[in-house]
Amino acid sequence: MHIAFDADDTLWHNEPIFELTQERVAELLENWVPADELGEKLTRTERRNLRLFGYGAKGFTLALMETALEVSGGKVPGSVLQEILDAGKAMIEHPVELLPGVEETLDRLAAEHPLLLITKGELFHQESKIARSGLADRFAGIEIVSEKDEETYRKVLDRHDLAAERFVMIGNSVKSDILPVLALGGNAIHIPYESHWELDKIEHRGAAEEGFFEAASMHEVPGVLDQIAALGWQSAD
Amino acid sequence: MHIAFDADDTLWHNEPIFELTQERVAELLENWVPADELGEKLTRTERRNLRLFGYGAKGFTLALMETALEVSGGKVPGSVLQEILDAGKAMIEHPVELLPGVEETLDRLAAEHPLLLITKGELFHQESKIARSGLADRFAGIEIVSEKDEETYRKVLDRHDLAAERFVMIGNSVKSDILPVLALGGNAIHIPYESHWELDKIEHRGAAEEGFFEAASMHEVPGVLDQIAALGWQSAD
Repeated sequence: MHIAFDADDTLWHNEPIFELTQERVAELLENWVPADELGEKLTRTERRNLRLFGYGAKGFTLALMETALEVSGGKVPGSVLQEILDAGKAMIEHPVELLPGVEETLDRLAAEHPLLLITKGELFHQESKIARSGLADRFAGIEIVSEKDEETYRKVLDRHDLAAERFVMIGNSVKSDILPVLALGGNAIHIPYESHWELDKIEHRGAAEEGFFEAASMHEVPGVLDQIAALGWQSAD
Repeated sequence: MHIAFDADDTLWHNEPIFELTQERVAELLENWVPADELGEKLTRTERRNLRLFGYGAKGFTLALMETALEVSGGKVPGSVLQEILDAGKAMIEHPVELLPGVEETLDRLAAEHPLLLITKGELFHQESKIARSGLADRFAGIEIVSEKDEETYRKVLDRHDLAAERFVMIGNSVKSDILPVLALGGNAIHIPYESHWELDKIEHRGAAEEGFFEAASMHEVPGVLDQIAALGWQSAD
């Protein structure tokens, strides 16, 4: 069995750091725009810039500054923009906090299977988080990618010479971790995370899908993997 | 023979795009700071932020905005900051312009050897440039890395199962493309580029170094490779 994990909001908290940063910026801009409207405008800016900036904290910081200029009609003081920039830097430096059960589950699984980490975002920041997580040595391979679609997973499977039917992807994003892997004939375990980034939301197609499994937390993952092995294969390796 | 190429300022122009952007920003800020002083302050900001932002156009855009806030004591108008942001986006969208001899040299070499591309920077932007260059299919492997040091090259050699003695790296940066490869016992061909980014400058150790070669342009690369093969190996493969 070839097991791969997403990182942000699967192994460690990520989205709350973005949300806290956004709340901080909403306070800074409260004279110009209500917090909920800022959220909408920010999402619009991010979406517009996605084809230039991709995913990640630097693009988010640039979007925060651009949105601050937009909602204030360019009148936002320099001191506030500097605070936004500093909030972006603080976000990048934020300590990596593991989710419950991550360490013991990875230790247990890594003893039996070569594990992969497949994460989307900015190369430099993702590498820094992986290093600071202390988890790097549990993984036989680490793939930092700019997009998680079928093509990306196909390339990763090819590069590691893996068969989709024996591949299990584990992550919190239905759009990025589950659907493209199911489309390739692979298996996926969804671990819902408490909050969802606006651009990563997608219709949930339900658990009836072949190859689709759910776990409430990392603690449940080994049990679900046993279930997948028992269902699909005569012997799990 | 295993041949790898750097991308920015080796296969296509890159540094002039950053320089033009900086010149444009210097004009926007001429009321606050002379152009040469802006350059110094910008380099200082980039150096300070390197451990957070790494290399690339988004980090550069953030550094431009931060420096504009700094030199103006926070008084730079919002419209100017928006122009700086737009200049950063234009930089990312800038057409990829190949250097002389790149296409024919890659075609010729790719017919005989599997070629690697090893480039440093932001994942999303580098992928975009590689796609827009039209050169992707000349390479058997593409490695986008956050830093080009001995450790990075060691990992790339290991991943592709290559021996350093039969590896040749070709690029414009003595610091990133030449010295770490020589340190591993590999060969390197330096193709000097007309301009150099401040943070990439390094003392040139001269051509006497074992494994070190120079070419004036991509046109000369096949000849230099023949020379390396003749010097070092009984038969070049």
